[in-house]
This record gives sequence, structure tokens and C-alpha cells, in this order.
Amino acid sequence: MNYRMISGIVGKVLTVEAAFMLPALLIALFCREGAAALGFGAAIAAALAAGLPFGFLLKPRRTDIFARDGLVTVGLAWLSVSLFGALPFLLSGAMPNFFDAFFETASGFTTTGATVLGDVEALGFALLYWRSFTHWLGGMGVLVFLLVLNPLTSRNSGENMHLLRAESPGVRITKLVPRMRDSASILYMIYIVLTVVQAILLLCGGNSLFDSVCLALGTAGTGGFAVRNDSAASYSAYTQWIITLFMFLFSVNFNLYFLILLGQVKKALGNEELRGFLLIIFFSTAAILVNTRHYFGSVLEGLRHVMFTVLTILSTSGFVTVDFDQWPQFSRTMLVLLMFIGACAGSTGGGLKVVRVQLLIKTVYRAIRRSFRPNSVRLIHNEGEIVDDKTVAGVSAYILLYFLLIGAAAFLISVDGRSMETNFTAALSCMSNVGPGMDGVGAVQNYGDFSNFSKLVLTLTMLTGRLEIYPMLVLVFPSVWKK
Amino acid sequence: MNYRMISGIVGKVLTVEAAFMLPALLIALFCREGAAALGFGAAIAAALAAGLPFGFLLKPRRTDIFARDGLVTVGLAWLSVSLFGALPFLLSGAMPNFFDAFFETASGFTTTGATVLGDVEALGFALLYWRSFTHWLGGMGVLVFLLVLNPLTSRNSGENMHLLRAESPGVRITKLVPRMRDSASILYMIYIVLTVVQAILLLCGGNSLFDSVCLALGTAGTGGFAVRNDSAASYSAYTQWIITLFMFLFSVNFNLYFLILLGQVKKALGNEELRGFLLIIFFSTAAILVNTRHYFGSVLEGLRHVMFTVLTILSTSGFVTVDFDQWPQFSRTMLVLLMFIGACAGSTGGGLKVVRVQLLIKTVYRAIRRSFRPNSVRLIHNEGEIVDDKTVAGVSAYILLYFLLIGAAAFLISVDGRSMETNFTAALSCMSNVGPGMDGVGAVQNYGDFSNFSKLVLTLTMLTGRLEIYPMLVLVFPSVWKK
Repeated sequence: MNYRMISGIVGKVLTVEAAFMLPALLIALFCREGAAALGFGAAIAAALAAGLPFGFLLKPRRTDIFARDGLVTVGLAWLSVSLFGALPFLLSGAMPNFFDAFFETASGFTTTGATVLGDVEALGFALLYWRSFTHWLGGMGVLVFLLVLNPLTSRNSGENMHLLRAESPGVRITKLVPRMRDSASILYMIYIVLTVVQAILLLCGGNSLFDSVCLALGTAGTGGFAVRNDSAASYSAYTQWIITLFMFLFSVNFNLYFLILLGQVKKALGNEELRGFLLIIFFSTAAILVNTRHYFGSVLEGLRHVMFTVLTILSTSGFVTVDFDQWPQFSRTMLVLLMFIGACAGSTGGGLKVVRVQLLIKTVYRAIRRSFRPNSVRLIHNEGEIVDDKTVAGVSAYILLYFLLIGAAAFLISVDGRSMETNFTAALSCMSNVGPGMDGVGAVQNYGDFSNFSKLVLTLTMLTGRLEIYPMLVLVFPSVWKK
Repeated sequence: MNYRMISGIVGKVLTVEAAFMLPALLIALFCREGAAALGFGAAIAAALAAGLPFGFLLKPRRTDIFARDGLVTVGLAWLSVSLFGALPFLLSGAMPNFFDAFFETASGFTTTGATVLGDVEALGFALLYWRSFTHWLGGMGVLVFLLVLNPLTSRNSGENMHLLRAESPGVRITKLVPRMRDSASILYMIYIVLTVVQAILLLCGGNSLFDSVCLALGTAGTGGFAVRNDSAASYSAYTQWIITLFMFLFSVNFNLYFLILLGQVKKALGNEELRGFLLIIFFSTAAILVNTRHYFGSVLEGLRHVMFTVLTILSTSGFVTVDFDQWPQFSRTMLVLLMFIGACAGSTGGGLKVVRVQLLIKTVYRAIRRSFRPNSVRLIHNEGEIVDDKTVAGVSAYILLYFLLIGAAAFLISVDGRSMETNFTAALSCMSNVGPGMDGVGAVQNYGDFSNFSKLVLTLTMLTGRLEIYPMLVLVFPSVWKK
């Protein structure tokens, strides 16, 4: 293992994080939020003290990186930014409990949006901004950002690939252009432009600059932290529709926007995953709309809330306009099933991803066929290409691991004695980076009532879900650390 | 598809079922249960009227059978015996609702033991005996029984193999001796001897002949139907320990008993699946015992109830001595997770089977290793032999299908508006053929409150679980019926 290289990258990541805390510090100073200013000042100092020596003084002897190093780097980098990002909450006194602050920050970076707070408005502007900003940074990826700034390893883009693959969601990473760094820059540009457009549209709807920016940051990362205690319930219908639209846009594979920029609109719209995603949205919205028809004053009002809720769950954002925990069991069950699915690969959304669910369906369909035609050869296709057996096996194992880890997390937090529905939906929601679950962690509830142990379990679950399992699991895998 | 051959076998199965209703008819006459006697008389007539023409008059032109025919035969045979086996309940007036009678009978044959009745004692001796006997017949398999009587197809044992493979649980079918029919006979003999021994031991404990026989039949099939309203709660500690012991014995792969008969005790005890099963029993019993220590008067009383409950769930029997739905969430969650696992392959128990869970763990372990050592070759072993990639893929697909179908069933029955915990544990419990679930279908509840639609869904779920998915799924797969 290339320890010098790994600690160098983690150090650089912490330095970048310190830089990103500066705007929050300025907001704190500008709004005269003394405790928050102190918290951010101390956090910046700590991040620099830890980041600079590792990031810039120790020069790595070799710059080569293998799959193993990539996974470990990403796992450690995300743990580090979550720990140092928690310092402002902790040191400002806003969250005196370390486990609360760690949970809230990991929830931000992983774009989960689960909160331990009932009264978020009490945090003040600086901490609210920081919460929303962690969504934005975590959505696209911390290491991807670093790569845009400068190449992380040698000139060899294959090595940056290991890092990106470990951090980015989806089955495969597509190179848009020959150099990895240029691909990352293009994707980040699209990300920034979409965020700015959303913020402007929110401003046009009469929202304050602060609300517009924070909501846009939270939507872009498909995070779900809001700046009001009632999440998105008290905003205008226009604002809710804008959020719905952008939750959809940020759930789509960003490569498709690049295709559209290149003029290949037809190819982009023909994308199999996009079509599957649209189908899921259409059918679940229709089914829930019929099921909840007596809950709303008009069809349009119902459509707005149901569409918002379906997209907040599928995009794994977690904003709330209506207490969907009170809906009929059929709708509630559908929402829980949607939590497994999540958004498209290559987006900022979480969950299993639509493409994996599509491959899952094709895999079990093939298994059924094989049961009665044992000798038939049947290939699995995706986006018009043959998927080799190793990839199919990898996706199956990934989904099984996903289920196992949700079961394990729900089992561990059951020691708190809360309801089974609370535990399983909390574990699922954290794994898929949604935010709210049902019952005790329902739409208008929060995660504050869990014990410190359970909060830690759920924090690690969020990180495991965001990093697509392996970067976190390898950290506790003994043979990873062997020479 | 060899329609003549398939209908011939289904016809023979119905004839056998009619023969097996005779003892119940005699009990009804002996105990002067007029309505039940009428019900059994009519059911026997109906089964013979449907079975004899197909089974013995129509001679198949060809006797060859392929995997597809085997699956369809088994699926149709089990649907048929469940439908005709429901007639005594229906025609005697004990269960005037068809969906209730169908549910109860399928629950019997699939050895689920889920009931729609609150007051089972009102059924009378004949119907209670029939309920317990369906467990015994379904446990080992209806077609296996037929095979013991006479070869089902041509002299070629490979074709009988297709039928047995479709009906019997487990990853692979082991031939104990060269001829399939002899293997089936040996297994059935072991089954009968164990059942008789249990009945005698129960008699020795002061139980009535009727109770002893019915309990032994229900335990042997790992079914769970009892003859008292409180299931097994009011029996003596001795009786409960005997049931616990035999729930364990009937959860073990029957091939191991054959090995022991051959003197290969060491090989039998070294069985990897058996060791895994023992480990699961040990750890879950210990954990639940610690968690529920304040619920019982003494350690011995606690050990009896916890051991009974762990084995009733793992063996997928479903007898009840204590309302485990009232236990702490940690224990309840553990029991729900145990419902997935089930018993050993080649036993009469249901669930995923221990060997599949072991392969699952090895598969995800390999996936984690592959994430950081992409090029390492790592073979998966089971019982000392290499498991080929196709089998691994098949097991993964099977487990994924298992989860998907439980989710689908829970989703469908959510239209009744019952709690999510009720729906998911009901679907899981039916799929794994356990019987009780939690909350609305908890240890002292029953399935009577579901709508007819939900009862039908759960009935099909039980059959799907017992037949290990494919024989039921292929029935609705269009390309199965194509030439």
C-alpha cells in the first residue's frame, strides 16, 4: 500500500475542505454569529493543521496507485472530511454531542439529509449554509473536485481512474473525453451551471437569496437539508415545482447532458436507464395519486405533492412538502420500495441506481428461463451492449450486499428498542442516502432520538451507501492492510 | 410439452390424495362428525373423478420428460392437491369461504402452518387430523411419495430426476444409491421412522394418541398446525422439549441420516451446512436468551421457550409456546432475520436454506476481495468441493428472486391497509413457510383478517416458497407454453 500517496491525497482533501469553510466563516462574521464564527475559525485551523503537512510537505516516493489504494483513499478521505466538517457544529456549541455533529455532517456529505435536529432554524445562517454546502460538495464528490484542480497522481490517467471509480456512483465510469481530468471538469461545469440556473429560478419565485442558494445546493447534491423547520412545506407551489424539476434533472446521468451539448439529443433521450427511470416515476406517481386522492383538495394539489414526494424519494433528496408517513399503507409501501431503487448511475442521487435494478430484473428473468431451458444461452444486454458474466455477478453481489448491510444496520440499531418499521426504514433510508424513513424517522420526525451507538451505526451506513459499499468495507478487511 | 404425461402424473397424485383422505373419513365416521364425513366423502369422490381418468385411462404416447415438463408438473400437482385438499374444509361447512379453505390447505401442504382460524379446536378430530397430515405429506413431497410407489416415467431415472429436482428443496439433489426410486424410498423410510419415534415419545409424556400423532405429523413436516388453540403453549415442558428436539432433527439434511446408517458418522457430523446450522442456533439462542432474561422466571424456563422459538422459526415450523411478538425489538428483529435463513437443504424445512446463506456469504466475501484485488482468482468451496460459477450465479439469482417476491407480495397485500410490519413479515413468513410473523400476524394472531385477495396472494406465496420458486413462476411465463 502506498501510504505516503494516500495520506498526501487525504491531506489535500482536508485543505480543500478548509478553503470551502471560508465562505461559511464570512457569513458568520457578516451575520454576527459569534459562536459559529469561532467554530468555523477553529475548524479551518484544525483542517489546515492536519491537511497541510500530509498534503504538501511529505512528498510521495512513488505516485502509482492500485485499486486497493484507491478504495482506501476514498474511504479515509470521506471519513476525514466528515470528522473535520463536524467541528463547526461541535465547537460552536450548536451540537455539543460529537455523535450528533458527526451524523449531521456525514449526512450532509453523503447527501442523505437525515438530521438529528427538530429545530434547524436555530442553527443560524452560517451553519445552515455549511449544511447545504456539504450536500453540494458531496454530491459530485470531493476527490473529483480535487482532480479538477490538479491531477492527483502521476500523468497517468489510469491511476486517477482508480480514485474516481471508487468515489463515483454507477456500474461503470464513462470517459467522456480522452483525459480523465477533462471529463471531470466537464461534469463539474454542468453541475455548476445547473445549480446556478436553479438558484436564479428560485430567486425569480420571490425566495430570499439565502433560501435560493441553500435550496439549490441541497437539490443539486440530491441532499435534502432545508433551512426551514418544515423542510419545503411552506414554500410556494412554484418553488416546490422548481425543486421537483431539478430533483429530476440531478437524478439523471450527467453524461446525457454532455451528449446533449454535443448535439446528440436523440442518443441521450434513447438512453435505456433514463427510459426506465421515467417509467418508474410515471407508474409510481399514478398509483400513489389514485391511492391518496382523498387526501388533497384538488387534482393539481395532489399531483404537486405526489410528484414531489416520488421525486424526493427516487432522487434520494429527502425534502418534504407533506407528511407522507400518514398516507395509506399502499402508498407508504411503494415509497419504501422506491427507496431501494434510487436515481440513475452517474447522477448525484443514491440508492441501488436504476441501471442496477434493470440488470437485476434481467438477471432473475434469465434465471427463470434457465430453470426450464437449462442449456439455452441467453446474454444480458444493457444500453445495446452485451454485459459480461463477471459484471452480472458483480451487480448481483452488490445488490445482495446492499440488502445484507441494511439488515445488519437495522438489527444493530434494534438495541434501542424502537419499532421495527423505524429501524428498517432508517437503515434503508441511510443506505440509500434518502433522509426520511417511516414511523419514528418519518417525514416530520428526525434521528435525534437514537442512541449514540445507533447514530454511529447509521452514520457509517450513510457513508457506506454513498461510496457504494466497497471503500468503507475494505477499511475493516484485514487482508487489505497486509503487505 | 408432454401434456399427456403431465396430466397423467397430476391425475395419479390426486388419486393418492383421495386414498390419504380415507383415514380422515374413518375418523369422522368413528367420532360421529357428520359434516366432516360428508366433506371427506365428497372430496374423495371429486379427487377420484378428476384423478382416475387422467391418471390411468389416458396413456401417454411418450414417457420422456424435460426440465420444463418437470417444473410444470410439480406446479400443477401442488395447485391441484391444495384445491382438492381444501374441499373437506369447504364442503363440511367448517370454512364456507373458498379462499380460507384454499389458504389453510396450501398452508398445510407447504408446511407453513399459517392459519386463518382463531378457534382451531372447533374443527373437530377429522379436520384437525387432515390439517396435520397435509404437513406430513407436503414435507417430504407428494411426487416423491408417488415415485416410491411406482416409477413415474420410463425406466430412465434421469427423467424422474427432473420431477424430484423440481419438488425437493436444496441446491442439488444427491443420489444416495444408483436408482432414484431407491433413494426416495430410503429417505421416506427415515422420515416414517423418525415420525413414529416422536409420536411414541410424546405418548410416553402422557399426551393423548390423537395429540401425539398430530403433533408428530406437524413436526415431521416442519409445519406448525397444532390441535389446540394455544398451539404448543399448554403442553408440558417435556412435550415442548421433545418437539424442540424433533424440530431440529427434521431440519437437518436427511442424507446425513443415511450416512449415519452406513456408519459414516464422522462424515455426517463434519457436514459444513450442519455446522453452520448449529452455529446459528447457538448464537441466536444465546443472544435472545440474554435479551429476554427478565421475561422468564428461571434460566431453564427461558432456555426452553427461547430454544423452542429459535427452532420453530429456523425449522420453519411455527409452533408457539410463548408470544414472542412481545419480546424486545432486538429479539424480534433477530427472529425476523432467522425467518429468511430457514433449515438445511434436503430437510422438510423451508426458508432460503443454510447452504444458500453460506454460499451468499462466500459470494459477497469474494466480491469484497475482488473490489481491491480485481485480478485475483478466488474459487468458492462448499462441503470441500469447488462450486462452479454457474451455480454461484444461480444461487445469487435465487436469493434475489426470493427478496423480490417477498417485496412484491408485501406490496400487493398492502392494499388491505394493515401495518407495514404485518405485511412484510406475513409475506416473508409465507415465503419461508414459517407460519407466524409479527404484529398483525404475530405468534397469537392469525391470517383471518386479510381480504380474499390478500389471502390468495399469500397462498400463492406459500406454494412459491415451498417449491423453491421456479415451478410456480414458470406457470405464468408465456414462453413455457410455446411449442
